[in-house]
Amino acid sequence: MLGEMLKSVREREPLIHNITNNVTVNDVANVIYAAGGAPTMADAPEEMAEITAGSTALTINIGTLNPGTIEAMNVAAREATKVNHPIVLDPVGVGASELRMRTARDLVLPEDIHLTAIRGNISEIKSLAGNQSGASGVDALESDAVTDENLAETAAFIKDYAKEIDAVIAVTGSIDIVADANTAYAIRNGDAMMSTITGTGCQLSALVSTFIAANQDEPLKAVAAAVSMMGVAGEIGKTHLPDYAGNASYRTAIIDGVFNMTPELLDEKAKIEEIK
Amino acid sequence: MLGEMLKSVREREPLIHNITNNVTVNDVANVIYAAGGAPTMADAPEEMAEITAGSTALTINIGTLNPGTIEAMNVAAREATKVNHPIVLDPVGVGASELRMRTARDLVLPEDIHLTAIRGNISEIKSLAGNQSGASGVDALESDAVTDENLAETAAFIKDYAKEIDAVIAVTGSIDIVADANTAYAIRNGDAMMSTITGTGCQLSALVSTFIAANQDEPLKAVAAAVSMMGVAGEIGKTHLPDYAGNASYRTAIIDGVFNMTPELLDEKAKIEEIK
Amino acid sequence: MLGEMLKSVREREPLIHNITNNVTVNDVANVIYAAGGAPTMADAPEEMAEITAGSTALTINIGTLNPGTIEAMNVAAREATKVNHPIVLDPVGVGASELRMRTARDLVLPEDIHLTAIRGNISEIKSLAGNQSGASGVDALESDAVTDENLAETAAFIKDYAKEIDAVIAVTGSIDIVADANTAYAIRNGDAMMSTITGTGCQLSALVSTFIAANQDEPLKAVAAAVSMMGVAGEIGKTHLPDYAGNASYRTAIIDGVFNMTPELLDEKAKIEEIK
Repeated sequence: MLGEMLKSVREREPLIHNITNNVTVNDVANVIYAAGGAPTMADAPEEMAEITAGSTALTINIGTLNPGTIEAMNVAAREATKVNHPIVLDPVGVGASELRMRTARDLVLPEDIHLTAIRGNISEIKSLAGNQSGASGVDALESDAVTDENLAETAAFIKDYAKEIDAVIAVTGSIDIVADANTAYAIRNGDAMMSTITGTGCQLSALVSTFIAANQDEPLKAVAAAVSMMGVAGEIGKTHLPDYAGNASYRTAIIDGVFNMTPELLDEKAKIEEIK
Repeated sequence: MLGEMLKSVREREPLIHNITNNVTVNDVANVIYAAGGAPTMADAPEEMAEITAGSTALTINIGTLNPGTIEAMNVAAREATKVNHPIVLDPVGVGASELRMRTARDLVLPEDIHLTAIRGNISEIKSLAGNQSGASGVDALESDAVTDENLAETAAFIKDYAKEIDAVIAVTGSIDIVADANTAYAIRNGDAMMSTITGTGCQLSALVSTFIAANQDEPLKAVAAAVSMMGVAGEIGKTHLPDYAGNASYRTAIIDGVFNMTPELLDEKAKIEEIK
Repeated sequence: MLGEMLKSVREREPLIHNITNNVTVNDVANVIYAAGGAPTMADAPEEMAEITAGSTALTINIGTLNPGTIEAMNVAAREATKVNHPIVLDPVGVGASELRMRTARDLVLPEDIHLTAIRGNISEIKSLAGNQSGASGVDALESDAVTDENLAETAAFIKDYAKEIDAVIAVTGSIDIVADANTAYAIRNGDAMMSTITGTGCQLSALVSTFIAANQDEPLKAVAAAVSMMGVAGEIGKTHLPDYAGNASYRTAIIDGVFNMTPELLDEKAKIEEIK
């Protein structure tokens, strides 16, 4: 099921416009190529409408926002909505400042912007949805973590929020949840060491855009495929690391894992189940 | 012939000032070190004149331009022209927005700015020269590609444009063309997988600066050497990749290939011929 | 002695806020994770007070400053001083422009900003302290280099400057000097090839923040541990490089070396002695 989604990416080679942070921008571009898409990274407000219209989908990542890029996000999101392009939001560290919260909500709430999906860690999604989370950095709090114990409850919250904003929500962590208003999946791929690399989340958000762009009729399955693939790439990449490798080698190995992913391998390795 | 150009880079260690994009800026700095030069990356208009004057050559890359960096590009280009430093322009995605086109032309056309070389893909060079190209991303269009069939015709167009703007033009793709007003070379180094990495073009533009800086009397040969070396590094890097490697490992292997390049190896592996 | 400092980092996992340059920002974030801390990279003035207050320490790196980030540096430095957080300054290329010099001095001199440490190469520290240095790029001048011959004299200068500004100073090069007003250490770890990679200095400055954040009662030893560890990681990383590797592979290997460092290994490999 998920493999088909990857197959579409490879066939359609969607062009993904990313307004992203300057920390992980290179990895984001390379992982889009690795998956089979093509990246455009641009954030000058003056060219946003054109660049957006010339692409297939838009990723907005607020990791290192500033007044100029915030304006670009708003222009691009309105244009993408107008021309009916998928938009994916990554609300990086949204609980860490009022500026981030205001910027994210200004993209979620307006009627003339329609987000197709949001990808974040559980602390970010809780903060964005208005639930309490004390996270001050860009990593999720231990106390917010999705566990087997709170899985059903968390899935219900995610589905409610997905319904409220009419978008697919992907919450990633040691157990990932991908949900729309009606259906929630738990995905158990990946490796704990992925959290020692900056930008695996940013990369995944761009893959979410890429997969939705190539599978616009099935956004829920597209997001699930992207989430699972990132995890599988992390599992495979890990097997190729020598014992003296660290997070820097692993960073490279994961993108390599995406590059060499096949639809068959994804279907074989994906650990996905519906949360009832 | 080309090996001598590299020898000069290694001996002179030119300091290259780069106003470049935030996607590939790290790789650009590292490939300059790998070749034997030294990089300075700076883009505040307030310090452009000093930084430019203190360097040996200037690279301008419009990949992620914004009002601040556009001003910096203009200040730096005028200062570099005044102090007689080589300037290399990389018109990334110039056809994708009016802002990029205006920015690029504002660097090409004024009398008080003299570009030494321009490096781009065929869609970018056609757009910049005023020919039609429908490219909307940063990659060249299939329909624009340089082939054996259109090589002579394309070379004639490139020579004409080189003459018009009095600069060396490097058009890179599966067949590269490097030309000034009088002479055009075809270079057939490289590997198709290089196009799955973001920034090989940006890196090459910085190498073009580096090679010209160290070989100011022979800009055409200097550019040809840089173009060929990037391709040879790609060929050599490819041979060191294990079968599970992807574009991320390859990215590293290419810069490593530049680092270990020797004048002899470059002369041995370069596939260059004049286009008559 | 130095190993204990690393042990504290691993136990406390300090959150480090970095206002840094866009060239090496990804490596800076990853090396903080590798050491055992967590990074936040943010530079919008509007969120500086919140982000600073929510972190444990602040790193300011002026490598690619612009008016917006300069304002952010000032807001963050004042807030960090107010809430008693350590601040580390990396005065990248401070001698290369008036803008850099003014920005750095505006962080060093005011009474309402207290820097805990400064890390730079010898040309940068001399320039900042008001001594003559003709450096125009971001690398140190040969003529400024710390050698066995000028070690005692340079250490005396560094101690004087440390006393003047009440901070720990780390001067890194082939011989590193770490000093406060009373004590100076010489550290002889590392490998000459580290200077062929962009950002090893930026990474080290972030590690200095990380180590001080986790060892606030002993800033001198914390800085010495960070400096020595970066060098040891470079030594160990070098041993894992195949002969076809270059600076790009080495870049990865050094961060991997930090990731796998243990307190025992650091104590065993550190080459540190007091300069009497």
